[in-house]
Amino acid sequence: MTGNIPRSVVDRRALISMLALLPVLSAPLAAISASAQTPTSSDALPSWNEGPAKQAILDFVRDTTDQANPKFVPSEQRIATFDQDGTLWVEHPVYGQMMYCLDRVPVLAKQKPALKKLEPFKTVLSGDREAIAKLPLRDLEKIILVTLTGMTTDEFEAEGKKWLAAARDPRWKRPYTELTYQPMLEVLTYLRANGFKTYIVTGFGQDFVRLYSQQVYGIPPEQVVGSALAVKYDYAKNGKPILIKEPKLMLNDNDAGKPEGIHLMIGRRPNASFGNSTGDQQMLEYTGAGEGARLSMLVLHDDATREYAYGPAQGLPDTKVGTFTPALYAEAKTKNWNVISMKNDWKTIFSFE
Amino acid sequence: MTGNIPRSVVDRRALISMLALLPVLSAPLAAISASAQTPTSSDALPSWNEGPAKQAILDFVRDTTDQANPKFVPSEQRIATFDQDGTLWVEHPVYGQMMYCLDRVPVLAKQKPALKKLEPFKTVLSGDREAIAKLPLRDLEKIILVTLTGMTTDEFEAEGKKWLAAARDPRWKRPYTELTYQPMLEVLTYLRANGFKTYIVTGFGQDFVRLYSQQVYGIPPEQVVGSALAVKYDYAKNGKPILIKEPKLMLNDNDAGKPEGIHLMIGRRPNASFGNSTGDQQMLEYTGAGEGARLSMLVLHDDATREYAYGPAQGLPDTKVGTFTPALYAEAKTKNWNVISMKNDWKTIFSFE
Repeated sequence: MTGNIPRSVVDRRALISMLALLPVLSAPLAAISASAQTPTSSDALPSWNEGPAKQAILDFVRDTTDQANPKFVPSEQRIATFDQDGTLWVEHPVYGQMMYCLDRVPVLAKQKPALKKLEPFKTVLSGDREAIAKLPLRDLEKIILVTLTGMTTDEFEAEGKKWLAAARDPRWKRPYTELTYQPMLEVLTYLRANGFKTYIVTGFGQDFVRLYSQQVYGIPPEQVVGSALAVKYDYAKNGKPILIKEPKLMLNDNDAGKPEGIHLMIGRRPNASFGNSTGDQQMLEYTGAGEGARLSMLVLHDDATREYAYGPAQGLPDTKVGTFTPALYAEAKTKNWNVISMKNDWKTIFSFE
Repeated sequence: MTGNIPRSVVDRRALISMLALLPVLSAPLAAISASAQTPTSSDALPSWNEGPAKQAILDFVRDTTDQANPKFVPSEQRIATFDQDGTLWVEHPVYGQMMYCLDRVPVLAKQKPALKKLEPFKTVLSGDREAIAKLPLRDLEKIILVTLTGMTTDEFEAEGKKWLAAARDPRWKRPYTELTYQPMLEVLTYLRANGFKTYIVTGFGQDFVRLYSQQVYGIPPEQVVGSALAVKYDYAKNGKPILIKEPKLMLNDNDAGKPEGIHLMIGRRPNASFGNSTGDQQMLEYTGAGEGARLSMLVLHDDATREYAYGPAQGLPDTKVGTFTPALYAEAKTKNWNVISMKNDWKTIFSFE
């Protein structure tokens, strides 16, 4: 267990067995903790190159926080929402939370041997990475439902934290929680220092992101909105109240589900939104359609050397679900959303560089 | 329109017609605004008589905020949840939001004349208050679904704010938003001054409570959890994004729905919870079952003179849905939940007294 994601079923099982023996780790999950310092605008975004993207952020904060400015927003109304995967941290080649779900399949197969003969679990257990990468969305959803439910919320929390502490990204050999974009962490801190409440609005499961949002992003669990499975209130054998995670989707927080989820959990329109894919399109539209100062930004993955290049940067069409399509790029141009070029706008990408 | 709720359909229609002509009122909804002052523990609860209920609140805050105390809770983890109806404001004889729904029936009947011949709308339109009071829960739910949906969230907000500004409680002839309990407003302010995030967790619709929560309770919309109807993202004819309220219940935030809703929207267990009925039982159990300092309190309506007496104060059994039943009273005794006697523990009930 020194960095690599295990490649075979045997390795995975060994990993999980070992993890089961470990105490729950309470150590900080990430190297980067939310800074309590209040940055001034001149040094607020040190990892950003000068350019229209950085300037748009500075202008937005200046307009909304200056009482003399006609676009001033009272501090208790300042809301900014951020997609996570591809916007705040790396989403390639596989979403971090999807890796968690895949890693849980061998554990579950031990408990329920019938899964071993059932697709898509059979493919996952085969360890054939190419076959796994080709699984359609419907199969991934089946895996998500099975691996994230049938346990109490406390058990889910303990399992998830163990995995987060031990799992390593295959390229950088680091915990997933270190693969956050330093320039975006600076934006989060800068907006909070200027009275904005920062929210994550993720298509992935909110219960998972809530396990590390405070340590990694400085965002408390209650400011994480995401896809949500139902929980059921019940009592353990000792009479203690428990919440059991059920295989029933309450909120699919992708596409139109993002503004819908924002209404459900926040109850008002954000002033600023950040995304990187078609899954964020409606959130940016909803944010952009409000009165006063608006900031809608898209992260463009165009840096094949330091991270990845995909979407419009690769000449497309890219039809992968939830990516930065040419249509989204065109809408961004029409509506004056700011596109952030990772290659040109970001001086550094990760804090460990 | 000088104080009374209109008694007949004609009056109701006149009221609504008149309201339709008014501009949306942006004036503060309540006389009491959330104080920014930090009260010291000695004068933090001036409307409370000395006694075990007041002492329990003071002890809880002392234990959780003193770093030297073994029950200390870091400030970013301090969460307190409050039921609304019967806990923060008057719920008798009819819930405020139910009055809103009933008042909307004549408006809707104008738009959809077919409703006039359909029950339970026919009964509501008859203006027969006794018959209306006898409508079963299922009929009330039908009324809620029909009157709160089929419009955009912006339209809902405008309509609701107009009603709140104009409607008057039949007994005190005051806006519903003034019928908040002064001692509970002091608890909210006191907990916030000591680093607690205060939440409303209501069985009624969260979209409605969010219209006035900031002005009345000092609680922002995103800290209101309640029963929630789905919204659907769509585009108006001019292309502007809109959210349409749909007749589909996403969360029934009563009974077990309260801890389930808390998990969905807050994502962690509260340290303190306040309620007054069986609808709050599971929330208090869930809060009480956590580690460390816990505060679970129930408001007992035992003051027929200054407010109302119902539940155990009236000798029972009281089988009305969502009241303080003998079984709940027994559970409170067993689990050492604190029962607040309105008659004995509260020096004043309303700020206007």
